[in-house]
Amino acid sequence: MRHFDLVVIGAGSGNSIPGPALVSEQILVVDDGVHFGGTCLNVGCIPTKMFVHPAEIAHEVAEARHVLNATSGEIRYDWQGIRDRVFGRIDAISEGGEEYRASGEPNISLLREQVRLTSEHELESASGERITFDRLVIATGSRPRELAALPLGDRIHTNDTILRLDNQPERLAVIGGGAIACEFAAMFAGLGTQVVQIHRSELLRGVDDEVRACFTEAAKRRWGLHLGTEVTRAVTTADGVTLTLSNGDELTVDHVLVAAGRVVNTDRLGTQELGLDHRENGALVVDEQQRVLRGGEPVAGIWAVGDSANTAQLKHVANHEARVAVQSILHDLGRAEAPSGVLGPIPLVVFSSPQIATFGRTLAEAHDDGLDAVEARCDYGATAWGWALADSEHFVKIVAERGSGTLLGAHIIGPDAGILLQPLVQAASFGQSVHGLARGQYWPHPAATEIVENALLKLEEQL
Amino acid sequence: MRHFDLVVIGAGSGNSIPGPALVSEQILVVDDGVHFGGTCLNVGCIPTKMFVHPAEIAHEVAEARHVLNATSGEIRYDWQGIRDRVFGRIDAISEGGEEYRASGEPNISLLREQVRLTSEHELESASGERITFDRLVIATGSRPRELAALPLGDRIHTNDTILRLDNQPERLAVIGGGAIACEFAAMFAGLGTQVVQIHRSELLRGVDDEVRACFTEAAKRRWGLHLGTEVTRAVTTADGVTLTLSNGDELTVDHVLVAAGRVVNTDRLGTQELGLDHRENGALVVDEQQRVLRGGEPVAGIWAVGDSANTAQLKHVANHEARVAVQSILHDLGRAEAPSGVLGPIPLVVFSSPQIATFGRTLAEAHDDGLDAVEARCDYGATAWGWALADSEHFVKIVAERGSGTLLGAHIIGPDAGILLQPLVQAASFGQSVHGLARGQYWPHPAATEIVENALLKLEEQL
Repeated sequence: MRHFDLVVIGAGSGNSIPGPALVSEQILVVDDGVHFGGTCLNVGCIPTKMFVHPAEIAHEVAEARHVLNATSGEIRYDWQGIRDRVFGRIDAISEGGEEYRASGEPNISLLREQVRLTSEHELESASGERITFDRLVIATGSRPRELAALPLGDRIHTNDTILRLDNQPERLAVIGGGAIACEFAAMFAGLGTQVVQIHRSELLRGVDDEVRACFTEAAKRRWGLHLGTEVTRAVTTADGVTLTLSNGDELTVDHVLVAAGRVVNTDRLGTQELGLDHRENGALVVDEQQRVLRGGEPVAGIWAVGDSANTAQLKHVANHEARVAVQSILHDLGRAEAPSGVLGPIPLVVFSSPQIATFGRTLAEAHDDGLDAVEARCDYGATAWGWALADSEHFVKIVAERGSGTLLGAHIIGPDAGILLQPLVQAASFGQSVHGLARGQYWPHPAATEIVENALLKLEEQL
Repeated sequence: MRHFDLVVIGAGSGNSIPGPALVSEQILVVDDGVHFGGTCLNVGCIPTKMFVHPAEIAHEVAEARHVLNATSGEIRYDWQGIRDRVFGRIDAISEGGEEYRASGEPNISLLREQVRLTSEHELESASGERITFDRLVIATGSRPRELAALPLGDRIHTNDTILRLDNQPERLAVIGGGAIACEFAAMFAGLGTQVVQIHRSELLRGVDDEVRACFTEAAKRRWGLHLGTEVTRAVTTADGVTLTLSNGDELTVDHVLVAAGRVVNTDRLGTQELGLDHRENGALVVDEQQRVLRGGEPVAGIWAVGDSANTAQLKHVANHEARVAVQSILHDLGRAEAPSGVLGPIPLVVFSSPQIATFGRTLAEAHDDGLDAVEARCDYGATAWGWALADSEHFVKIVAERGSGTLLGAHIIGPDAGILLQPLVQAASFGQSVHGLARGQYWPHPAATEIVENALLKLEEQL
């Protein structure tokens, strides 16, 4: 029976756990993915954004025709060219990473199988090997939720498979209304696919209402939206997939993308059987050192990070948690201080079109929390950069506590939202108040950052 | 003879001086521009960026053909459509602003003439009116430098006139190598004009060497560059303008844009005759309250802001100085504290293509200043967003003091450089060290801000 000092299950953010600080430990990395390296690299953040960028250019050109006095022929994208370029790059990284973990370091071994915990210090692989360990990091991530009415197959996909299609779908149904569904809908629409998005409720629930309304209006102009309904039946024919909706509508598409939420992979791992504490969505409950809890108390020797351990389901959060876990392990080994301190607010960027970036509370949420909060909004169109964009719909909203000026949240929809948010994330993370934030620094004229500056100035007037 | 409590000469940033705080003062605003409102609004930052944006889209599409597996027909821009849209918007603002200053407020008068100071408390207008005043703000800005070999006319322009051409030039020579010349060259090239840029030395002197080299390489691919030479003779014919260069080359273009530096307008104002202190470029020397100096001492009742008072020649600096001047005037009136404190580093964005954003010292400048400085660079291509862009040439460089981690400068070339710079401007302005700056906040994955994050992490390792 093999024994390891440390086992890491999941090679997404988990793959960053082994490193120079743990070079004296015998470590087993476990990854049962089709491609080594987790969701972000292979089927998530990275490849999608590599498709989103060309799609966004196509969209900008389409807008340019109407708004910027430009005309052009149709932009024709070479789907296979994009796909092969993207996965030519990514698969090589995945394969290189796998090779390195398999044989690149004397203290690290790789197991490419699904595993199940049989105790706090033992696991069993799908092929029947039993492995013991002193310490464990659970980083098993999440997978797309499957829907009973839409069994996966040649025409019905998740993000795991849709980007590798041989041909760009002419007609695509996107099922879901969250960030992933909205990104894929905009991306395929930008590349010229005729998209319909079907979701049982509203788009992007949890995001600021004005932002959601702005996004939904933009989506309606660019692709078909069927909200408040769901697919009850899917019949695959030679011509495509015919979907029947709960509102009685029927439509036929070439392919379907199911992006209706994600299932935390702890269910396959046996963590329930070990009596560990779980959140409602299946993620493990952890303390500020990423140690998993049982009955509210940390379990010795077990950490969890990423989608296994939070409900944010964001790569930058998983990466941070992996760093915290490493330090906690080192502390457990007597080699470091315990990690301390909680990082500032978690930004979320929806790389759709329009792009959305947000952190913290909406005004309504702040009021619900009993805070004396105020909000200010600056439209892109109120600044010179917005004039350059000929923008008339996008905006920045910032929420702060009256008096103290503590930043409570920011909500941006529009071009470069994900970048424009960062000065506000930074201010909130380092405890900078809204008082003096705009006037305490230069904002180069006429860059898009003036939208943030002006929102801050308007907010400051209300404090 | 009319008398005013306050005269403001120049209605660019000077136009922000009159406001609620000075409503009890009788104020005269003087503007001798063809269009009311100064350079930025009428012939500078704002209209150029309104042309830059569509040009940038065209460039992105051209890049997309090569890099992003897309093909398209030629994008055809409607120059007159852009021009009429831009100036339809801007001229209306200028005219509305002029009307408001002329008759919108009982305490404000407008004089649309060139004026000359005859004493510290009197001016004379071109039409011969003499006006006295208690207090004066000089905000007369700057104008394009004219070149003897290139007399302005129907085919030889500056930024003051080129954007209003009836037809887009097919062939354009841009004379100069600074930010303005580089912006116009990229803009016209993006819109499909055949551009040659002619400059007596190198492009963008004063900017980080690696950034300049990267820019120059990109420029060479997109337009003709004649560096280290200058125009010695221009002959206008029916066919265009034939330029003879000092290196013996000869070339014919439809139009010429002279963008070879700017002359500070104090020369027309009589400030030399008043014995005020001037910088080498003609700008007035001011103290931290924007009070002009004579013999190193502040002159009672005279302030200067913007290009009249600094060598940055940037709108965000002028706007800041106008705010400082207002507070200083209020202090002089006994109604406010004196302004205090100096704002952090001044960012410069060159809205060319590629875009450049920079503040503070290069590593070489830091060493020249005797600082123990270190630098780190992160390429766009080293991040997931760079993969999405298929970027292989652009980068972020950050300079800090070893030990303290004090931010000394940052230098970015590439898409969205002007926005990416802001978290670093903010950190430098509020005295945040590089220590902990990257890891003390979330950077959403895989946004372009990760390039800045990674440069900070690399820099921190060297501190």
